Formats: sequence, structure tokens, C-alpha cells
Amino acid sequence: MNIKITGTGSYIPDDVEKNEDFYQHEFLNADGSAIKHPNEVIVKKFQAITGIAERRYAKEHLNSSDLGFFAAEKAIDDANIDPETIDYIIVAHNFGDVKHNSIQSDLLPSLASRIKHHLRIKNPKCVTYDILFGCPGWVEGVIQANAFIQAGLAKRCLVIGTETLSRVVDQHDRDAMIFADGAGATIIEATHSEGGILAHETASHTYDEAYYLHFGKSNNQELSSDTCYIKMEGRKIYEFALNHVPDAMKSALDASGSNISEVKKIFIHQANEKMDEAILKRFYKLYNTEIPENVMPMSIQKLGNSSVATIPTLFDLVKNNQLENHSLSKGDVVIFASVGAGMNINAIVYKY
Amino acid sequence: MNIKITGTGSYIPDDVEKNEDFYQHEFLNADGSAIKHPNEVIVKKFQAITGIAERRYAKEHLNSSDLGFFAAEKAIDDANIDPETIDYIIVAHNFGDVKHNSIQSDLLPSLASRIKHHLRIKNPKCVTYDILFGCPGWVEGVIQANAFIQAGLAKRCLVIGTETLSRVVDQHDRDAMIFADGAGATIIEATHSEGGILAHETASHTYDEAYYLHFGKSNNQELSSDTCYIKMEGRKIYEFALNHVPDAMKSALDASGSNISEVKKIFIHQANEKMDEAILKRFYKLYNTEIPENVMPMSIQKLGNSSVATIPTLFDLVKNNQLENHSLSKGDVVIFASVGAGMNINAIVYKY
Repeated sequence: MNIKITGTGSYIPDDVEKNEDFYQHEFLNADGSAIKHPNEVIVKKFQAITGIAERRYAKEHLNSSDLGFFAAEKAIDDANIDPETIDYIIVAHNFGDVKHNSIQSDLLPSLASRIKHHLRIKNPKCVTYDILFGCPGWVEGVIQANAFIQAGLAKRCLVIGTETLSRVVDQHDRDAMIFADGAGATIIEATHSEGGILAHETASHTYDEAYYLHFGKSNNQELSSDTCYIKMEGRKIYEFALNHVPDAMKSALDASGSNISEVKKIFIHQANEKMDEAILKRFYKLYNTEIPENVMPMSIQKLGNSSVATIPTLFDLVKNNQLENHSLSKGDVVIFASVGAGMNINAIVYKY
Repeated sequence: MNIKITGTGSYIPDDVEKNEDFYQHEFLNADGSAIKHPNEVIVKKFQAITGIAERRYAKEHLNSSDLGFFAAEKAIDDANIDPETIDYIIVAHNFGDVKHNSIQSDLLPSLASRIKHHLRIKNPKCVTYDILFGCPGWVEGVIQANAFIQAGLAKRCLVIGTETLSRVVDQHDRDAMIFADGAGATIIEATHSEGGILAHETASHTYDEAYYLHFGKSNNQELSSDTCYIKMEGRKIYEFALNHVPDAMKSALDASGSNISEVKKIFIHQANEKMDEAILKRFYKLYNTEIPENVMPMSIQKLGNSSVATIPTLFDLVKNNQLENHSLSKGDVVIFASVGAGMNINAIVYKY
């Protein structure tokens, strides 16, 4: 028995928020002090580091569970399966449904329950739950689906990553420009066809790192001290990711029995272009190997960082030949790798 | 290999909120209209149905992750294990950390990350995630731990249920009296000793039932229309639970190969005393059997409904002979059964 991704779908919101749309923002330092440069300079520097030129925001009337539902519908269609045969719906997110202009997270019922409700699935044996695991939540959901299939609890799982980070950003923090909305979904199932999940690796670093990404106050100290936003210690995360993600990828690749030369694509969490390039460089250095051309597809330039949604969305785009210079062929070995709040890291080695 | 609970711990908050403490509340109907009876009558009727005389609230400076940490420390002590050997920390909750006098859920990082951080566990291979699954979240966390152990991903897991429902109740809704704060934790591990998890069953009913428990407006229509609270359709839930929980328990018991006469204790989610008694009655009716004396320990009278925390807390109390007329002996077959938001139902048959 192999465990494969037999369907993918993604939902990329229509509303484009360009870097120029941030020119009117009042950006402040974390201590509330003014930033000396004009916004045009701030935005240019931001783009040079992160690679982000624009990002997508969900329409006001849509919530994270809606985005996840749209992606799920496409994945089910793509896999060409009867939705009533799904054994698990696993939804990764980090903030629940945060309505436009609201500061509350709506988590009751779980987003997985809502999505199953929207899909009109009747089968009560289709178990629905949400997983909170930072940005690597979708990858971890796939690892959990894989475990449930191995343990005989399931044959077919729907794993979704969905997020509306635009609703939890601090408008006075330059990091607001990083975050985006989106959803990706996949069907994972036991199959007799070749390939599938070869190996995986997960690590949770919480001793010193637990609060590198956290919920904190606005940089504008005049705003309500009660309201919190997504906050990150960018430099620490950058160093942490560089020190740990390549090792996790190597552990998974070595466990898979595949050779570094077989790796055709690396789908890495779209957090920051420079960081992702540095991780790639260090990963190949572990094998004393040159980085192959076009091994790392990137969507961050147009889509920003949509957390749990980046990897399934990117994979869906490449699989459907919607990303220039990127395609997949049967038998290709690929790696999914992510890092985020927790701080959590994971990697899956997968034969397409 | 058997998979057993080798340690338990619970945290019961010190602050007692008695039914009389609700005499000054302004209770309203869902449509905002006044309730005709005086509060003393409302409270008496409430107590007659639910069995709840008092409940516990967490101290203002403590959050859900703190409660979970306290319970986890005790479970680790009880199991007498090195915390560095834990492979998974799975935390079930439904609202994250909601600070006193705040309406925001703080979910970043996950509560599992926070608890591992507080436990000072260094091992990055100890994977931390949160599960949202309504009140049956702790039971489902145990089922997931069981699957990870069966799939070879883990040998030892810490499964926690923690909640501060006092922070998400509508003070104008009589149902506010149901909900409580608390945490329970267990160590689940592979062992050569006899007994352990014999069978389990899970169902998610979302077609018509997804929003029986949901996040909604206050009964006081003069309050901010933006702020939401835990809301439930009590009558529908009662009927749903009666129609489905006994069947799930029977499926699990039949799958376990155990006979109804072997069942020594049923640890059922402490939602409502009358409902739990009706479920028990219907369950035994499925076997045309009399209900044995003292088969269903209850803690709801003193502890209220602390969601995911009720079952692990109740089990911890009985295991430690802290509940009158209840004790456990090696080899006893027991059932854990829960129902809640989703609507989710689950049951585990376990040999002590």
C-alpha cells in the first residue's frame, strides 16, 4: 500500500493588495517610535528581502472556512471521488474564522465541521477536526492523515490549509505586508499505484523559541492595549529556520532512501524569498551538491505568505502547469518543507 | 503491545462560583425578552435539570494553557516518566487562551507549544499540536495518540484537555451557569502490561447539526453586536445526544469483544446530569440489561461542564479514590464517551 495525494485544489482570493497600497500606512517601530524612512523606501526594502510585490486578501463577506471549502471542492473534483467516501477532514489554520472588522476568532464549531457542512457530506463516519500547528499545519495534517491510514483508521482523507491573515495584522507594523489570505486542499489516500509519501520528519522547538511568533500589541501604543495582532521576531526566525529546516529536510530525505540527485522540486513554505533561498543553499551544501535549476518554485511574489495555505497552493499551481518553468512528471521525488509558529518544522519526501 | 493510560492529572480551579452567585444576573431569553420568573426560580430549575450546584472558575491571571500545564505536570509525575521521553503533546480546547476581560482568543503559538515551553522540555522530537473537536476533544486526542503509537510514530503521548469557558459565556444567558473551567491530562503509552485501549468509535454529524453549538450574539440586544459568546440549542443537543451517543458506545463495546456485564464504569462527558442519565438508560436498554449501581461517576454537581476537561478530570478523581462510592480495580472494563460541538461523538472502551 502506498499513500498518495490524489487530488489538489486551491483558492486564491480575487482582491489584489499591491505594495503601493501600503504607501499611506503609518508604520512604526515596535517601541512605537517613528521610522525614519519614507514609506516608498520601506516598501522597496521590504520587497527586496521578501520578494513580495503583492498579496491576496479575501473578500469581506468570506471567512477562512469559506476559503477552505472552495479549495476542498476543487480537490474533491480533481480526485474524482465521492465526498461521502472521505474518512477524515483535517483543517489546519491558526486563527479560526475572523470576520472582517472583527477581532474575535470564531472557532465554534471547528472549521472542519463547517467545511463538511458546506460540502453537504452526510456520512457521520467522516471525522472532522482542526489542527493548530503554525504555518506547517497543512504538512502536519498530511503526516497525521498518513498515520491514520497506516493505523487502519482511514483510507481517504481531505487535508486543508486555510487562513485569513489580513484580519490579524497590525497596520502599524511593516510585517503586515508579509501576510496574505488563501487556502489549499488535498485528498490523501491509500492506493496501489507507485510512489507516495516516502518519509517525513517533524520537530517542535519550544524551549527558547515558543514565542518567536506570538499574539501581541500594536506598534501604535495609542491603540487599545487589549487588542492583539500577529507579531514576529523576524531576525530570530530567520536564523532559526536556517539552522534547523535544512537538517529536517535532510533527515527526511535520508530516511526516504532517495538520493539528493533525484529531488526534482522543493515546495517550501512561502515565508520570505531570501530566507527560502538561504535554506535551499544550506540544504544542498549538506550534500556538497550544486543547486539544480528551477528546483524551488515560488509564489510569494504574487501571493505573499498565506501561512498553512502556501504549500498546498504552490503544489496545486505547479501540478496544473500554472507556474512558469515548473512542471511535475510521474516518479519525480519532491520535498514539502515548512517552518512556523511553535516553532514547528516539518518535511515530507514524496514520490509524485 | 497494549496502549494504556499510565498517568493522570487534573487541575480544578480554586474559585467556586455557586448557583446563588447568579441571583443578581439579568437573564434574558434568546430574543432579548425578559424571563418571567425570578432568578431564584430560574436557578432552581436549572439545578434540577443539570445537577449543577456550583462550578469552578480560573483565577484572573491564569489562562487555559496554564491550567493545562498544571494538569500535565501532575500526569507526568503520576506516570513517573522523564518528560523528555514524550513524543507528542496533544492539547484539546475550543477557544484558546482567552485572557480575563478580553474577547480575543490567543492561539499563537498553539497551547501545546506553550505547555511544552512551561514544562521545560528540550527534545525537539516531542511534537506539539492543538486539536479542536468540541467537548469530545480529549477523547479524540487519545484516539489520535493511539493511532500515532500504532503507526510507529510515537511510544508515549501526553494528551490534555483544557478550557476556560467562564470567559466566553454570555452573562445574560441562563446557559452561562452550565460552563466551567478546568483541565485534565493523561500519559498514553505503549506497554507490555495487560489491558489498555480495546476499541474506539468516532462520528461527526454536521449535515443538520453543525451549528447546534456555535459562537453567537448576547441575549442582551443592547450589547455590542460584534461580540460573540458560546451559544447552544439545548433541546436539539439533548435529543441528538440521546439518539446517537448510546449507539456509538455500543459500537465501541461490541468491537472491543467485551460483554456489557464487564463494564464497571462509564465516564461520560459532564454536560447535563439528566441528559447523561438518559443516555445511560438508553445504552443499557440496547442490551436489555439493568443499569448496575454506581456505574456512572458524576462530578458535574461541583465542577459544572468544563468541556474537554470533564472526562480526564473525572477519571483522575475516580482513579485516586476522590469520588465517593467509586473506585477502579485492575482489569475493569470502562467506557469513555463524549458529545459536543461539531456535533462530534466518540467513545473508547478501555481495560484498566
